[in-house]
Amino acid sequence: MSAVAPPAVDPAAAEEMAQEAAAWCALHGLVVGDRANPRSATVPGVGLVHAPFSLLPARLPEHFWRQACELAPIFNELVDRVSLDGDFLQDSLSKTRQVDDFTSRLLEIHRKMMETNKKENIRLGLHRSDYMLDSETRSLLQIELNTISASFPGLGSLVSELHRTLINHYGHFLSLEPKRVPGNAASSKFAEALAKAWAEFNVDSAVVMMIIQPEERNMYDQYWLTKHLKITHGITTIRKTLSQVEAEGKVLPDGTLLVDNKQVAVVYYRAGYTPNDYPSEAEWSARLLIEQSSAVKCPSISYHLVGTKKIQQELAKPNVLERFLENKEDIAKLRKCFAGLWSLDDEEIIKTAIEKPELFVLKPQREGGGNNIYGLDLRETLTILQKEGGDARAAYILMQRIFPEASLAYLVRDGISHEGLVISELGIYGAYLRNKDKVVINDQCGYLMRTKVSSSDEGGVAAGFAVLDSLYLTDKVILHLSTFSAISFN
Amino acid sequence: MSAVAPPAVDPAAAEEMAQEAAAWCALHGLVVGDRANPRSATVPGVGLVHAPFSLLPARLPEHFWRQACELAPIFNELVDRVSLDGDFLQDSLSKTRQVDDFTSRLLEIHRKMMETNKKENIRLGLHRSDYMLDSETRSLLQIELNTISASFPGLGSLVSELHRTLINHYGHFLSLEPKRVPGNAASSKFAEALAKAWAEFNVDSAVVMMIIQPEERNMYDQYWLTKHLKITHGITTIRKTLSQVEAEGKVLPDGTLLVDNKQVAVVYYRAGYTPNDYPSEAEWSARLLIEQSSAVKCPSISYHLVGTKKIQQELAKPNVLERFLENKEDIAKLRKCFAGLWSLDDEEIIKTAIEKPELFVLKPQREGGGNNIYGLDLRETLTILQKEGGDARAAYILMQRIFPEASLAYLVRDGISHEGLVISELGIYGAYLRNKDKVVINDQCGYLMRTKVSSSDEGGVAAGFAVLDSLYLTDKVILHLSTFSAISFN
Repeated sequence: MSAVAPPAVDPAAAEEMAQEAAAWCALHGLVVGDRANPRSATVPGVGLVHAPFSLLPARLPEHFWRQACELAPIFNELVDRVSLDGDFLQDSLSKTRQVDDFTSRLLEIHRKMMETNKKENIRLGLHRSDYMLDSETRSLLQIELNTISASFPGLGSLVSELHRTLINHYGHFLSLEPKRVPGNAASSKFAEALAKAWAEFNVDSAVVMMIIQPEERNMYDQYWLTKHLKITHGITTIRKTLSQVEAEGKVLPDGTLLVDNKQVAVVYYRAGYTPNDYPSEAEWSARLLIEQSSAVKCPSISYHLVGTKKIQQELAKPNVLERFLENKEDIAKLRKCFAGLWSLDDEEIIKTAIEKPELFVLKPQREGGGNNIYGLDLRETLTILQKEGGDARAAYILMQRIFPEASLAYLVRDGISHEGLVISELGIYGAYLRNKDKVVINDQCGYLMRTKVSSSDEGGVAAGFAVLDSLYLTDKVILHLSTFSAISFN
Repeated sequence: MSAVAPPAVDPAAAEEMAQEAAAWCALHGLVVGDRANPRSATVPGVGLVHAPFSLLPARLPEHFWRQACELAPIFNELVDRVSLDGDFLQDSLSKTRQVDDFTSRLLEIHRKMMETNKKENIRLGLHRSDYMLDSETRSLLQIELNTISASFPGLGSLVSELHRTLINHYGHFLSLEPKRVPGNAASSKFAEALAKAWAEFNVDSAVVMMIIQPEERNMYDQYWLTKHLKITHGITTIRKTLSQVEAEGKVLPDGTLLVDNKQVAVVYYRAGYTPNDYPSEAEWSARLLIEQSSAVKCPSISYHLVGTKKIQQELAKPNVLERFLENKEDIAKLRKCFAGLWSLDDEEIIKTAIEKPELFVLKPQREGGGNNIYGLDLRETLTILQKEGGDARAAYILMQRIFPEASLAYLVRDGISHEGLVISELGIYGAYLRNKDKVVINDQCGYLMRTKVSSSDEGGVAAGFAVLDSLYLTDKVILHLSTFSAISFN
């Protein structure tokens, strides 16, 4: 997966396109809160800036796109099946809980639900499965499966529209066709899934409650869903932090969740996925309160736990998928996208990783991301863990390192266009809605492309600079662009 | 015309509505550049903030609305007729030129065009006629007629949509009906008029050139027109300052205007209406260059001059309208909306104004607005001018003071809602396109409501705080809101 390096875009043309694109963002709500404006994370409509974006979409051979789309309903189903096996979740995460307080608190809520035999009849999953295309194996490999708070369904849809518009205006210079950018209805599809869950709950006066962080620069991504819920489905959304739910919420004896005296049909978490979202006991009380209610949770505590790295690694073990799925073809499809994943119980793999650290990533089990360990640091950490022995190893998962193809692209941030070596990650949204035995939705729901400056691009723009992107489907299996030499990096 | 003071909106509900509205602005491109961000006037997509808006539309009895709409095509026709009478323009403005350098420079270009017998076959006017409802006479009176750079066709359309959306969501609490907010297609109608002028020009490869200021916080209002031109009509717009036109532009012997090697079909001025837009001779050269070309000018130098206050005052004199229009009903309709207007040649009116300054406004002939003189200052200025005698008087027009009704409303700026006493001004957009004898368009094209804090609201928010607004049509002739006492102010 390599972001397209525009064949014939000279810097002046890129500048003109970037200006047109940034104005388009302002007109079409492809915006975020600007870090430079302290009010932008709390007050709607102020301190806005266009979301960072790639000037042109990232190329991907169409068959990989089809493969990723096909996987979505299978993962949806898998999450649901695994969520029903409470013992599997508790057992698989038993060591993790000893080294990670956050997972431990989630498991505690999960255990309480098991003890009271709490069942979720209406189960709603809004997931995003993230992939990279590994240039070594020429295969699409899963990075992770997000089962809580998958972000950018709102803005991601707009980037596809932006790219189609730009290709419409400039495509003839670039030999690009707008129809090769797949339509992306993530925003309306997610809203539709929330609306259908609300309909299954079947209380006309009830609302959707979005759980938000007290400060949120990505609030417009969320407001897009709110808009679709209201305009298309006539459903009101309320926005509450976990701490507000603790203060204003209660559960009636029949399970009804009331927050600020409004009955809640569906709880949609856009917060609660990281320990930072639980600064006090109040937030944990709110999470427990919601879980004890009869409201539809997106996700339930079980769905949330299925998305942990440890469960990802457990599911990658031989014969584990077979416990949850019957269809052999489906199982084969899932397995094909699994990267190598190991717990640190495996002495053999630790030895290999210490010898060849460049082939692995060491991932802390803690959620929130961004703390992956590579290279010599990986070697050092593993060596220490090997000496120490004991439970500390359970805090990590070892993963096969993926080598995505890098290419040249223009990334636009804060109104400025930067050319650099980039790599891309494809996320496929999936929605699953079930009411007891009835599967109401099991669909792929659009995509998110994220492109970032390759860490190897030392002459380029600041590291960690990531932008929203979309897809350009190509016929060719090869990814290299004829006009640029592509280089493999992570 | 009094902005609606929402009957049952308590401050908490207003706050909730204001947040929803501000988020709506961010999603739908109802944005401007934020003064606090120095880059927001030059770089698209950065330093955005929702445009200031009134939380609910301003009430207006429907018959005044119909009256204002009916006037639009008559004013369109009048402007065209007057523009053809070069001697009338030169003569009427002959004294003004001696005291106002800006008008003098415009007249000089106009005279040059007369000398070369330059004719404009394709004439495009995009005007806005502004009115206030005078509570003393209970009549709609014209404030001014803008024949150049009438702003907010883009954003104004969106405010009507915003208000309909809010009334859809909250209308049942407020006893308001969304259908009473008239649809406002100013944005697409202006784009359509530009597109039709482009079509009359009939050169497929030619572009529309928007003349812009080097710094423009209202650029998104302009980008909305650009968007409609491209998406609906397939026409490319280039943005140039007058200084860039001077540097990059030339006129070929056949009249073809080339700027940056692109042929220009239509020149649409969103700058050039104030002396500040001509800091050097370069800008005047550009204005002359454009005028000498065969491109369609919106407006031509003649159309521009018709919109001056002096011409407004001349047209209000007895028997002057009759020189330009035949239809007696049309003439009567125009006259009905004319406020009293006098030049300072009239000793009688000067005497009256010195005695009763509260009934008049003294308007400098200079364009740009904002320098009107009232009350004791008016008395003092007139007394000095009376003593001095001579040409200095020609720098002013005396106008009947209009007393619009004031009412309470919530105005939202920078994410903060303020309740205050406000007054409103209604602008009606008009488009006129003619190719020789063929009138292609002569239409009313939507509206702009602007609401500002009444200067008498001393306990209220900062003076000069004006917001975008829309209209709520009422059956009643009276304007007072049952729940609030309305007070007459200017």
